[in-house]
Amino acid sequence: MRHFIHELDELQNRLLEMGGLVESSIHESVLALIERRVRRTDTVWSNEIRINRLEIEIDELATRLLALQQPIAGDLRFITAAIKINTDLERMGDLAVNIAQRALTLIEEPAANAPVDIHKMAVLAQQMVRKCLDAFVRRDPDLAREVLLSDDEVDALRTSIYRGSIEFMKQDPAMIAEGVDLILISRHLERIADHATNIAENTLFLVKGIDVRHQAEA
Amino acid sequence: MRHFIHELDELQNRLLEMGGLVESSIHESVLALIERRVRRTDTVWSNEIRINRLEIEIDELATRLLALQQPIAGDLRFITAAIKINTDLERMGDLAVNIAQRALTLIEEPAANAPVDIHKMAVLAQQMVRKCLDAFVRRDPDLAREVLLSDDEVDALRTSIYRGSIEFMKQDPAMIAEGVDLILISRHLERIADHATNIAENTLFLVKGIDVRHQAEA
Repeated sequence: MRHFIHELDELQNRLLEMGGLVESSIHESVLALIERRVRRTDTVWSNEIRINRLEIEIDELATRLLALQQPIAGDLRFITAAIKINTDLERMGDLAVNIAQRALTLIEEPAANAPVDIHKMAVLAQQMVRKCLDAFVRRDPDLAREVLLSDDEVDALRTSIYRGSIEFMKQDPAMIAEGVDLILISRHLERIADHATNIAENTLFLVKGIDVRHQAEA
Repeated sequence: MRHFIHELDELQNRLLEMGGLVESSIHESVLALIERRVRRTDTVWSNEIRINRLEIEIDELATRLLALQQPIAGDLRFITAAIKINTDLERMGDLAVNIAQRALTLIEEPAANAPVDIHKMAVLAQQMVRKCLDAFVRRDPDLAREVLLSDDEVDALRTSIYRGSIEFMKQDPAMIAEGVDLILISRHLERIADHATNIAENTLFLVKGIDVRHQAEA
């Protein structure tokens, strides 16, 4: 039993490690873009290798716990939540890689001074990643709900970046590819925020047993 | 035991139902765009409601099976695979909704005759959805590998749609918003294909016990 609790902690710690790497990758990929510094992306590539290893390790650990410990009730819900959160975190890492790749393309081109606030959106996405994992680890439903509320702000930023970029491209059609890149980066950040929202929903389900998915349609 | 096998079949059947709905949503959302017919999207909205219900039902069924049956080995792997596939299918449904929403915006505007083949990409994505689920249900590793191979074709189509759309926007800057919409739709289709790839990878892991995720980095 003591061994089982130790393994549950281990599972949780690896998810937190993965979350920290994802935050760092979002931060570095967006700063690479803003500061136009190629080397800033180095961390993203090394984080990615570690994130992918962690995904496999966490899956193996979770499956072993299910098989050997035959957990019930709360522990079972915790382990199935961990399996899902693991998938979300791995995708977030991929999205940060996509941002870094696009940043490298943009750095090659003349600076696109589009009036859009990618940095603000990135900071918000990073905060959501940290908060949703803190909420999961502390079983804190209020913090999980904060993440769900941030999603509106993300949508507003996405729309404003879309409009600003379209306007920018219309004014200077030579910058069309750059404008499209900015829009695509904002979509990657939006998807990162969506995954944080999934984790917050899973946390609410774990803590309160309420399923908040698809509430709007109910 | 007979009851358990019946419930595993039930789990599989619901995943197949979900897959059928996802295929139908991809088909209808892209035809709405190509034929410029708003009503074609009706099916997408009704499919979405059913897909979201199925997601919750499948999760409940899988968790109940884990708790009550305490499955081991192959059955355990099957159920954890089902939990992941469920998430992939729900996201694919969301992506088809995104395509339908963007199709509605595009239908409002003058026809954008961009030289890009969204239809071909949609047909390929649909085939991948069907194949990955067939592979899962039949535990067919060869079919799963076919899905993995299709991913290169998807990447090629994505790149060609990107280039064609940028060219189209440069030639007619009045069509910038339409060009961006076409690029975003191709990205939604690419993500659907990515989810099909995830399902194929999960199937290979289930059948062969080989983890093909992140092989390129190994």
